[in-house]
Amino acid sequence: MKVGVFDSGIGGLTVVKSLLEHQLFQEIIYFGDTARVPYGSKDKNTIIRYAIEAVEFFKNFELDMIIVACNTVSAYALDEMRESSSVPVIGVVEAGVLATANAMKDRQTKNTNILIIGTKATITSKAYENSLKNLEFTNLHAKATPLFVQLVEENILSGKILDAAFEHYFKDLEHPNAIILGCTHFPLLAQALSSYFGKDTVLIHSGDAIVEHLEREFDFSHRYSDPTLKFFASENPDALKKTADEWLYEK
Amino acid sequence: MKVGVFDSGIGGLTVVKSLLEHQLFQEIIYFGDTARVPYGSKDKNTIIRYAIEAVEFFKNFELDMIIVACNTVSAYALDEMRESSSVPVIGVVEAGVLATANAMKDRQTKNTNILIIGTKATITSKAYENSLKNLEFTNLHAKATPLFVQLVEENILSGKILDAAFEHYFKDLEHPNAIILGCTHFPLLAQALSSYFGKDTVLIHSGDAIVEHLEREFDFSHRYSDPTLKFFASENPDALKKTADEWLYEK
Repeated sequence: MKVGVFDSGIGGLTVVKSLLEHQLFQEIIYFGDTARVPYGSKDKNTIIRYAIEAVEFFKNFELDMIIVACNTVSAYALDEMRESSSVPVIGVVEAGVLATANAMKDRQTKNTNILIIGTKATITSKAYENSLKNLEFTNLHAKATPLFVQLVEENILSGKILDAAFEHYFKDLEHPNAIILGCTHFPLLAQALSSYFGKDTVLIHSGDAIVEHLEREFDFSHRYSDPTLKFFASENPDALKKTADEWLYEK
Repeated sequence: MKVGVFDSGIGGLTVVKSLLEHQLFQEIIYFGDTARVPYGSKDKNTIIRYAIEAVEFFKNFELDMIIVACNTVSAYALDEMRESSSVPVIGVVEAGVLATANAMKDRQTKNTNILIIGTKATITSKAYENSLKNLEFTNLHAKATPLFVQLVEENILSGKILDAAFEHYFKDLEHPNAIILGCTHFPLLAQALSSYFGKDTVLIHSGDAIVEHLEREFDFSHRYSDPTLKFFASENPDALKKTADEWLYEK
């Protein structure tokens, strides 16, 4: 199977990493809209317009499906992408909601404290909250943490700035049972978040959630240990490839 | 006189504030490319392409000049904008260099320690450094501080995160005699920077530098105490107008 992975920039590489670890696809075509990143501070109509352009781009390849490895796009533009696409379009938000429900299913109560963090656009959309409410989760807290994106891009993954940013965003929150990492940059902060909140807080990772979702919905009879990877970017594809080398192949 | 002010987003409003304080123009047309902000992490060709589109936009108005209130665009695309424009195009980098030289002129030495801070693109361009070297300044230090943009956008203008960010970027630097605020977001951090470096460090502000430059180069025989202001944005003009209300009319 051949998949297109779309993100506004480099964050979606954390999803690619999960796809590679589980060897699901023979070929992965990654497109990052690096000339117009970030989407997380943009408004709905702009996000939809850019997302439909990505679907058009992927029509140059004979894909079996498109994965939207960007929470902001998944929150706002999934329906419109599906209308424009002849192949299935899978988003990280839906996958993340199901992974959260699955991770919390052994608890006896739906009064689980779930924290959702993401870009301003993702949090404003209430996409995670509305879907979780439909599954009868009630104790939901959502927090836009836009600084985290820049911190990850700066490779600041620990230390005083991050500690101060955690205090800034989290100091008034109750202890969460689960945190949805509602931005594909955030898995790089997983270790720091675990240190801050403690090991008993489950972190929901978009990449792992997508893999879980795909394995439930599609038939992956083959595994591909040596898939073809192609990277496209609306600007500076070399920088994208460099980040891919760093993120995909390091522990 | 009628001026167009161009920025990638909202930062250029700090330049508008200086123009208003000095009552230089009868009409100010502001264009923020908010659908594609930030430019500071983009590459040269993309920045030039977007900048020329801005010149085309301004052709809808009968302007006397265009001010590029974005350091990144001034550093990369000024020549190309001038080629596309029939009216003068004034950039903040050139103005900032001259303002720095002027502020330092009473010192007996050119061995003044000057720190330039800005976006990655502005710092990579070496636009400030090269121009200052031409004026025989030698003790120059340049530091990309991309977190500052996000901190200003988040209205984090003091406190622990900012203190930690200052430590992160500045801890190994010698005490500067002057700091060029090479990004139009940074004047909002002026107070915090003065507290950190001390009052003897001169801060060079793009808006004040532009006013100084304009008054030297053009004849402003009239002053306009009640100019017309028009705001345009490539997305969400209401958010731009809201920020303008906050930044332009508060002390």
